[in-house]
Amino acid sequence: MPVISFDLQYALELVGTYFFAISGALAVQNREHDLFGAGFTGFITAIGGGSLRDILLGAYPLVWIGNIDFLYAIFAGLITTFVFFPVVAKLRKTFFLFDTLGIAFFTILGVEKTLALGFRPEVAAIMGMFSAVMGGVIRDTLTNEIPILFRKEIYASACLAGAVVYLIMNHCGTERNSNLLLSIVLIILIRLVAVRFKLSLPTLK
Amino acid sequence: MPVISFDLQYALELVGTYFFAISGALAVQNREHDLFGAGFTGFITAIGGGSLRDILLGAYPLVWIGNIDFLYAIFAGLITTFVFFPVVAKLRKTFFLFDTLGIAFFTILGVEKTLALGFRPEVAAIMGMFSAVMGGVIRDTLTNEIPILFRKEIYASACLAGAVVYLIMNHCGTERNSNLLLSIVLIILIRLVAVRFKLSLPTLK
Amino acid sequence: MPVISFDLQYALELVGTYFFAISGALAVQNREHDLFGAGFTGFITAIGGGSLRDILLGAYPLVWIGNIDFLYAIFAGLITTFVFFPVVAKLRKTFFLFDTLGIAFFTILGVEKTLALGFRPEVAAIMGMFSAVMGGVIRDTLTNEIPILFRKEIYASACLAGAVVYLIMNHCGTERNSNLLLSIVLIILIRLVAVRFKLSLPTLK
Repeated sequence: MPVISFDLQYALELVGTYFFAISGALAVQNREHDLFGAGFTGFITAIGGGSLRDILLGAYPLVWIGNIDFLYAIFAGLITTFVFFPVVAKLRKTFFLFDTLGIAFFTILGVEKTLALGFRPEVAAIMGMFSAVMGGVIRDTLTNEIPILFRKEIYASACLAGAVVYLIMNHCGTERNSNLLLSIVLIILIRLVAVRFKLSLPTLK
Repeated sequence: MPVISFDLQYALELVGTYFFAISGALAVQNREHDLFGAGFTGFITAIGGGSLRDILLGAYPLVWIGNIDFLYAIFAGLITTFVFFPVVAKLRKTFFLFDTLGIAFFTILGVEKTLALGFRPEVAAIMGMFSAVMGGVIRDTLTNEIPILFRKEIYASACLAGAVVYLIMNHCGTERNSNLLLSIVLIILIRLVAVRFKLSLPTLK
Repeated sequence: MPVISFDLQYALELVGTYFFAISGALAVQNREHDLFGAGFTGFITAIGGGSLRDILLGAYPLVWIGNIDFLYAIFAGLITTFVFFPVVAKLRKTFFLFDTLGIAFFTILGVEKTLALGFRPEVAAIMGMFSAVMGGVIRDTLTNEIPILFRKEIYASACLAGAVVYLIMNHCGTERNSNLLLSIVLIILIRLVAVRFKLSLPTLK
């Protein structure tokens, strides 16, 4: 009896995409972007990481192009942002939580997809991290901000750590669902602890 | 008797590429770029949108790689810019018109190519817009400017609107050439009216 | 008896990748990047150019994904940077030399790979230059700096010139190894002379 069934996973992917689109659209609220700019930014945030992963792997069609459900999940996220903006904007802290859940979940999904396509674990670790964070990196690059990756808090490194732990446990034969849950919880914990205690990695000096 | 025959369309694509290269090279004239930088920028502007569309769709070879004519159209545009710079630079307003014609034309060509490859209309609408505007977005990102997309005037949203209208009319069985012309004219009109009356979409607030 | 045997070439590619990772990680030392940010930047610099070339050509799998040795060469470069940072940082001038050797070498390898895949020489010239310089361009774009391409000194144009010379000599039937060495030396010379005498191309005016 799987803890995470296929249908639950699929539903979670759509929900994660929905929240990624919202947090992407919200990310630019302080700038002078119009509705279209906010929608475009939300769209890029939601599809960027997975698209880059699949382009690097040559895994066509891209998820959101082959399965229109993801496009509708993004549209739903953007419309939610536009219609309920005053409410949504107040939920910033809640969205920080959703973003953390999202990057943890998409990291491990990215690792699993890469392994399933027959690539090596070293590649899977990188692709897991890319799936989770590159949407935000592309968004920040387009809007001329310093990408999240290069800001102080531990963010992408938490994803990479979780991916590596998943791969080691997978190599040791840990049952998939336990491994999935453990790695996701690990990423979330690292991220929350880092933000709570303002931890950061040392700089080159 | 088609209004737009295949050969005319092909000629228009080459001419559009030629003008895109010129407007891309001109886009950086106020900065301290050397000739090579201007040429590189013109090149990226001309190939960026179509290349991104085809990479996302996995449609290989990319147009300019499979058909060398496009590369020569770009070279011709760059040489025109370098040799006739004093003349070309004074024609800025004319190039605004060419750019507007260009984005309208490439939007609908991008929509048609995506449909012809068997993808869904929702994907085609996004790919049409990407074909037209992402060359400029990549150029602006590389040169550290705020991408055209995020500046005030209606630009990419005009392309998206034209793409959606084309797809609806196509769905309703409108004859292709009429549809093509109507959608292109619509994009041009939206853009010209927006610029003339300084219209912009509302911002998130 | 080939001057450059296959095994030597492979070893040189790995060594070049190793040095590209180091120079990429060093490129951000003045900014507040943490270790992860520096590692990420080194990684992107090392894989960016070749990855973009192969994605544009549709040549899958990407080199570093299909052959894990390249990933380990990058890891080795990053660990070298982190562990021996005080030493490595003092060798800046040495790394300028390695970077120059690297772009010259990767330009011609990129040209040869593109030709070997059956693409036209015009495409190969562009892909050679992209292989060499786009890793740095992507790195600079992500870190919000003006890309190397657009700074004053002759850089990418030296690569393009060397690529064109290689292609002309190749067309004229020059033996491969002589051609390889001559073109690489040419790129290095152009670059060194340009830096030494602060030469730059004219700007558009």
